Amino acid sequence: MLYAQVHLTLPAWVHERIDAAATYPGDEDKVALAIELARINVEAASGGPFGAAVFDPQHRIVSVGVNRVVPQNASLAHAENMAFLLAQQRLQAFRINDRYDGPVTLATSAQPCCQCYGATVWAGVDRLLIGARAEDVMELTEFDEGPLPADWIGELEKRGIEVVRDIRREQARAVLRAYGEHGGQRY
Amino acid sequence: MLYAQVHLTLPAWVHERIDAAATYPGDEDKVALAIELARINVEAASGGPFGAAVFDPQHRIVSVGVNRVVPQNASLAHAENMAFLLAQQRLQAFRINDRYDGPVTLATSAQPCCQCYGATVWAGVDRLLIGARAEDVMELTEFDEGPLPADWIGELEKRGIEVVRDIRREQARAVLRAYGEHGGQRY
Repeated sequence: MLYAQVHLTLPAWVHERIDAAATYPGDEDKVALAIELARINVEAASGGPFGAAVFDPQHRIVSVGVNRVVPQNASLAHAENMAFLLAQQRLQAFRINDRYDGPVTLATSAQPCCQCYGATVWAGVDRLLIGARAEDVMELTEFDEGPLPADWIGELEKRGIEVVRDIRREQARAVLRAYGEHGGQRY
Repeated sequence: MLYAQVHLTLPAWVHERIDAAATYPGDEDKVALAIELARINVEAASGGPFGAAVFDPQHRIVSVGVNRVVPQNASLAHAENMAFLLAQQRLQAFRINDRYDGPVTLATSAQPCCQCYGATVWAGVDRLLIGARAEDVMELTEFDEGPLPADWIGELEKRGIEVVRDIRREQARAVLRAYGEHGGQRY
């Protein structure tokens, strides 16, 4: 018997804790939401210490994501990937920015690992906003970021994706630190 | 309203066309199955010209995958990723090889793109068998493989993943060529 269906979900708390109707005008606002998602995910024990969100050109939420690797037994279920999958399903488009005239933004609490880096290339986003750096993740938690192209930022920019780093980095580091200090299980 | 669930499926034909009980002892047998999945996927118009399968240490199928990007509006739904998701869900393990004593193998009809490359790092496989090369994909179809680390094979081998290329390469190229010649829609 072949398995032919897979079902991935966000934790139920997203409906109570996230204001889906709000707008997030600045880059700091967008990354703050991603960090808040990461923080609540740890507090609720619903996955690893990572959050992400996709925003439309009017700075509204298209989708959010949190790490769900362990609860859902899915190594693909990183925060960025969950946000991409949910945005594309909502819009019924395999490139998110096919549905908009202006730029689509992914904000993430920490630098995408090798898997989410590759996914970002195909997902249809125009801007990538990052909180913590890869070295913060490796310093404060047991996670590895995996192998990236040497000029990973340049490769994204070549494909029309602007990258902005170190947005609310200290706040993003604080979530990773709190997770690491509580001996967070490997997600 | 936030979207919080995503559902991905293989085409129904996998149940009729793939013998889930067979064993695939050699590397050539394993890649032949991946190529056959790619071929049927094109014939059935159920996704792009790519197939993959995960095998347990006894050379039995754990899962299969085909490209489902366009039919499911999901840029993550490449063949390798579908096979990883389905294997992990079946085994209820976020690393496939956590469930086995011997080596777990992913066979793929063509070299993983940047997204599936990163996913391969975390999925829990010990061997990666590849049919067509990236340059075959780019020569024969309109697909881009995306940015990889310069020594992408060495980075996998450092992480305990053996890579074998050019297995049934001509047969794999033939599927890509047939797809390209029929002006295959971009998947």
